[in-house]
Amino acid sequence: CTREAVTSLIVKIGEDWIFLTLLGVIMALLSFLMDYVIGKCQTARQWMFEELEFSVAAQFITWILFPFVFICFSTGFVHIVGSNAIGSGIPEMKTILRGVVLKEYLTFRTLVSKVVGLCTSLGCGLPVGKEGPFVHVASIVASLLGKFLTSFKGIYDNESRSSEMLAAACAVGVACTFAAPIGGVLFSIEVTATYFAVRNYWRGFYSAVCGAFVFRLLAIWFKDEETLTALFKTSLRQDFPFDIAELLSFAIIGIVCGFAGALFVYTHRKFVEFIRKQKKVSSFLQRNRFIFPGVVSTLIMSFLFPPGLGQFMAGQLTNHDAVNELFSNFTWSLRNPDSAYEEEILDHWEGPLGNVYVSLVLFMTMRFWMTAVSITLPVPAGVFMPVFTIGAAFGRLMGECMAVWFPGGLGGHVVVPGGYAIVGAAALSGSVTHTISTSVIVFELTGQMGHVLPCVIAVLISNAVATALTPSIYDSLIQIKKLPYLPDIINPDAINAHRIFVDSFMVRDLEFLSSDSTYAEARDLLQRFRFRAFPLIDTRDNMILLGSIQRNELLRMLDDQLTLPSKVAYFEKRNTQLLPDDTTGGATGQGPPPVRSDSVLSGGSQRFAVNRVQSSNGETESERETEDSRHVQFKTTLDLSLLTPEEEELWENAQLNREIDYEAYQIDPAPFQLVEKTSLYKVHSLFSLLSLNHAYVTNTGRLVGIVSLKEVRSAIQGYTMSSANRKASMATT
Amino acid sequence: CTREAVTSLIVKIGEDWIFLTLLGVIMALLSFLMDYVIGKCQTARQWMFEELEFSVAAQFITWILFPFVFICFSTGFVHIVGSNAIGSGIPEMKTILRGVVLKEYLTFRTLVSKVVGLCTSLGCGLPVGKEGPFVHVASIVASLLGKFLTSFKGIYDNESRSSEMLAAACAVGVACTFAAPIGGVLFSIEVTATYFAVRNYWRGFYSAVCGAFVFRLLAIWFKDEETLTALFKTSLRQDFPFDIAELLSFAIIGIVCGFAGALFVYTHRKFVEFIRKQKKVSSFLQRNRFIFPGVVSTLIMSFLFPPGLGQFMAGQLTNHDAVNELFSNFTWSLRNPDSAYEEEILDHWEGPLGNVYVSLVLFMTMRFWMTAVSITLPVPAGVFMPVFTIGAAFGRLMGECMAVWFPGGLGGHVVVPGGYAIVGAAALSGSVTHTISTSVIVFELTGQMGHVLPCVIAVLISNAVATALTPSIYDSLIQIKKLPYLPDIINPDAINAHRIFVDSFMVRDLEFLSSDSTYAEARDLLQRFRFRAFPLIDTRDNMILLGSIQRNELLRMLDDQLTLPSKVAYFEKRNTQLLPDDTTGGATGQGPPPVRSDSVLSGGSQRFAVNRVQSSNGETESERETEDSRHVQFKTTLDLSLLTPEEEELWENAQLNREIDYEAYQIDPAPFQLVEKTSLYKVHSLFSLLSLNHAYVTNTGRLVGIVSLKEVRSAIQGYTMSSANRKASMATT
Repeated sequence: CTREAVTSLIVKIGEDWIFLTLLGVIMALLSFLMDYVIGKCQTARQWMFEELEFSVAAQFITWILFPFVFICFSTGFVHIVGSNAIGSGIPEMKTILRGVVLKEYLTFRTLVSKVVGLCTSLGCGLPVGKEGPFVHVASIVASLLGKFLTSFKGIYDNESRSSEMLAAACAVGVACTFAAPIGGVLFSIEVTATYFAVRNYWRGFYSAVCGAFVFRLLAIWFKDEETLTALFKTSLRQDFPFDIAELLSFAIIGIVCGFAGALFVYTHRKFVEFIRKQKKVSSFLQRNRFIFPGVVSTLIMSFLFPPGLGQFMAGQLTNHDAVNELFSNFTWSLRNPDSAYEEEILDHWEGPLGNVYVSLVLFMTMRFWMTAVSITLPVPAGVFMPVFTIGAAFGRLMGECMAVWFPGGLGGHVVVPGGYAIVGAAALSGSVTHTISTSVIVFELTGQMGHVLPCVIAVLISNAVATALTPSIYDSLIQIKKLPYLPDIINPDAINAHRIFVDSFMVRDLEFLSSDSTYAEARDLLQRFRFRAFPLIDTRDNMILLGSIQRNELLRMLDDQLTLPSKVAYFEKRNTQLLPDDTTGGATGQGPPPVRSDSVLSGGSQRFAVNRVQSSNGETESERETEDSRHVQFKTTLDLSLLTPEEEELWENAQLNREIDYEAYQIDPAPFQLVEKTSLYKVHSLFSLLSLNHAYVTNTGRLVGIVSLKEVRSAIQGYTMSSANRKASMATT
Repeated sequence: CTREAVTSLIVKIGEDWIFLTLLGVIMALLSFLMDYVIGKCQTARQWMFEELEFSVAAQFITWILFPFVFICFSTGFVHIVGSNAIGSGIPEMKTILRGVVLKEYLTFRTLVSKVVGLCTSLGCGLPVGKEGPFVHVASIVASLLGKFLTSFKGIYDNESRSSEMLAAACAVGVACTFAAPIGGVLFSIEVTATYFAVRNYWRGFYSAVCGAFVFRLLAIWFKDEETLTALFKTSLRQDFPFDIAELLSFAIIGIVCGFAGALFVYTHRKFVEFIRKQKKVSSFLQRNRFIFPGVVSTLIMSFLFPPGLGQFMAGQLTNHDAVNELFSNFTWSLRNPDSAYEEEILDHWEGPLGNVYVSLVLFMTMRFWMTAVSITLPVPAGVFMPVFTIGAAFGRLMGECMAVWFPGGLGGHVVVPGGYAIVGAAALSGSVTHTISTSVIVFELTGQMGHVLPCVIAVLISNAVATALTPSIYDSLIQIKKLPYLPDIINPDAINAHRIFVDSFMVRDLEFLSSDSTYAEARDLLQRFRFRAFPLIDTRDNMILLGSIQRNELLRMLDDQLTLPSKVAYFEKRNTQLLPDDTTGGATGQGPPPVRSDSVLSGGSQRFAVNRVQSSNGETESERETEDSRHVQFKTTLDLSLLTPEEEELWENAQLNREIDYEAYQIDPAPFQLVEKTSLYKVHSLFSLLSLNHAYVTNTGRLVGIVSLKEVRSAIQGYTMSSANRKASMATT
């Protein structure tokens, strides 16, 4: 009754709204909780470090040990609970939204693994981010929430609906990390989608706003913030944020960040390839999975040790603190702090040399490789925030230089280095992820819009440079992980995409069912191939495509064919017919066994019926006298448990050698069809737009081939290779 | 040589970049120029008004006459030069981007008409906007620029490329109007696209940034602005922009604006329908096209006359000034202006009653109907800015009330009425246009981000309310103008979209060509039907679909068949065969005329050859002696000009009755195919995603029907009607 009441309530308000609100609120709570835990970890580390001030050695040991333990715990936990939680999660979500099912990727187990793993890996102070993993977490929550709501009403099982909800979840994930709903929605679209349905736009928006709102609300309740403000609130001069002449230096930031972003992706990739190539090392690391994270964390942490090298690169700062200080509104190189806070910042960044430039350069370069190495660890780890921080440092460096070079400023106002830091952060994170929306994210993060034009210009330039050099970090990860993702055709002319036709890359060696196929053939197909669907044709001679039948539909069909009722029916029938086909089947010598039918068998589920028969085993011995009464047509008593294996086989063969009766089963009468002269470009567009997995190729209605995602992918990649390579790859596939 | 140099330069830098930069810069210049002209017109009107202070009557006459003349000029100019320039332009661009060709919509003539018409209609002070027409202008510029660049390199004739460029142009149009690149891109996507390719995202962004940048740069150069700042720069308090409790009042703004937006669309629609229904009135207005605009402008202007009713509703303010004042950062109801500027604002809005509430309410209500009526005038007119202004007034009203009700403010800080005005403006413009990106536009317009959450929340709420009640103003205009646009399926379950199949709404009465069709049949088809393409089948019995042939390909085929060379060849052949089929053709009695072949005929174009023959008319008489030399196979001299009409017809019939030879002509071997059991929902998705115009329905390769945009549209609309209506509509189609 309550269930019904809830159902009607859900229907009344609209399931979408409830779903999206719940998703946003849950994610905000989760994000806030995780931030709290991570913050506590970091505070604990800081506290321990400060308490041990009497001994540098003890400080060093805790500084190293704390992250070591955390990262090892994270590695172990993720390995045991769910190894799908490793890494960013955005590449996988991109693949899933493309329509590919990645098994076990959206389960509760993975959720637990990701959340706990992320808390520990972020808590230990390594330069990794939260936003990628959080997209994954949001997607899992959406998927589980969808399943939960489905139990009330069967709306969420629609496949297109569920992918809409996943897209919204990605937006929520980003929005909750940065408390930036608008930028979050745009970033998630850019990062995960190829084609985007505008009508789904509001879903992401609504859910992201709910998330961001609750996230900031919680900050007010628990952290004594006064009101809903931006995460990295800045107070830069707004009446004259920059002079037009300064746009040139912003453009230079864009160019440098473009190259740096490409270099980052390249470094990360080369590092992964290097580790993989050392077969012995990599197999050793595979067996001893704690060694690699342990070594990396120890190495990075000893570099960052504040009394040691760390003092030259603001080593004690977390990503969050570093960004806050880099965005601050005073010129470091002038060395005239107005407040205790500003003094503290200068203290962090001047280091023992009293030179902010050295600190900034070291900060950038060291964090650069640290981040590239850290994201290869087998723990949940995002890439956005560390890169954002590095970009901010570069921007700040540029800004400080400008402030020194033009002490009087340009256009009559002094230069604002904080603005440069904002632009740098947006440009570098934009070039690594190949997104433009980072420029929107920074405004929402800082709460100020003064630098909108410089920011967008720098981001566009850095994107243009980076796109020309490498794929985005997420696409690079897709390639490294060999996920089944369909790459974009960037230059259709270069690979002749308009002049390559389906007939040159389709699979001609077809597996199909015809209208006169037997069940045995169907079983054979299912056993030999893992395809999700099989084509159905009329006859082997005509090859006219009638439709497509799903794998699970075929399985159901075989199940139905081999049920107990049909078994009973078969033996009853055989018994009445004096079994002329028994001897031909090979079961020589043995007479037919006593058979007995339980009236229960005609109803109930198969499993239940089988149990019933087996439990009645004891009685059957006493009923052997009915053995010879073969002409009793109805009410024959069969005891199936007494059948010999040979007889079982016989029966099964007989059942399977029948022609399939498709009547009761769902056949898709309109599978996606191409013709032989459809161009590669068109095939690619169709596959991308419609999230197809496969399509049949027909010639005047006759099935002549099949094209699946794999063929399209290899066709695109094949034709970008040189001609020699191409032939080799064609020969192997 | 220069041409080649330019071409190679273009190729080197990349055509896209050049195209997009040029587009942005041109649009910025155009926008700035237009703003300048419009500004001058408005200043002139203001100046005249002030100069005539001695006589209220004279003031009234100029106040009325000036707009009257302008609007009549605009009406006349648009009527004469290009009536496609009437209205917003966004509905038409939406239709064009959907893949439908609207004739004459993107020509230079329309551009001139739109630009001049827009300047005059905006200059006269009517409450109309610039952003819709500007989207249209940008699209025309993009289209023309594409054609110009094509003359250097044949890249831009690709159809998908051109639609990508048009989408970018729409973004530029919005961006240049508001100097808001980010919001502009998002707004244009929301307003024009159904599905959006993420890879085209940067195009719009880049071009919009170029546009916005140049637009603001020009403002610095010409108007003595200090630096690049926002258009409606605000200086609202940012450290504590609003208390959480105030979110409730922002939500109320959202709800009210949602209803008001729906009411606006409804009012506009009913007004148009009312005018149309009065058959006599509307035909009278059609004949005397200056009366309606004249009457409307006079009516509106007499309401706004500042010494009259206008003083109660800030009648002298333009949209731009009104928004600036409504966004100002001081509380009007406190009546303690700090500066001369603030005093002036109070002066405008307090009116003779000294009551800002009355002025605000009158401003809102009067502008509401004025805008709804103004956009029906036959001049270029946008709807965004007037609606934005009305929303700002409503927000300001709400804010002032809040300031009075909570004099101490909420959360310890006083209420900021300017923030309410921003939220109201975003919410109302969002609900009228059904867009969420207005919330981004307002931040770029004001340069402040403090109210991001209230704004997004109010916009989402107003969108939800408005969407549930009416279509957006642009969709409403599409319906009113009966543009061939495919509506979205909002609720697939309500119209059974998953359970209605193609076979229930496809056209079975097919027009096709078969492989044994004659040219005459092709000509007949072309004459009887205006279809863009015809299906090609093998034989009338088999009906196997072989491909699709374009209309212009068929025209070329017929042209080729009836060329002069073929004519000459025909008559030569006939002459050598003693014309056995001549008499059967009906040309009795008359012998074959003298024929003569000019060697020129084999080369050159058809038209040229014909002229040549006719000009040599004089000589032919003297060459009659060759009349009987019928056995000269080559070099026979034919004089086609001497053929009788009957012979011409004979020849033509003979040519046309041949079977078509498809060899040399382009046939699309892969036209889009559906099967009879494809669901309406799937058809709709395919048509929207792929911008299809028609698709063939096949059954095992046999062509059984055709579905065009029209059928899909009527199927969607048909099934939303009641059952009775549906049957009626089915009978008529």
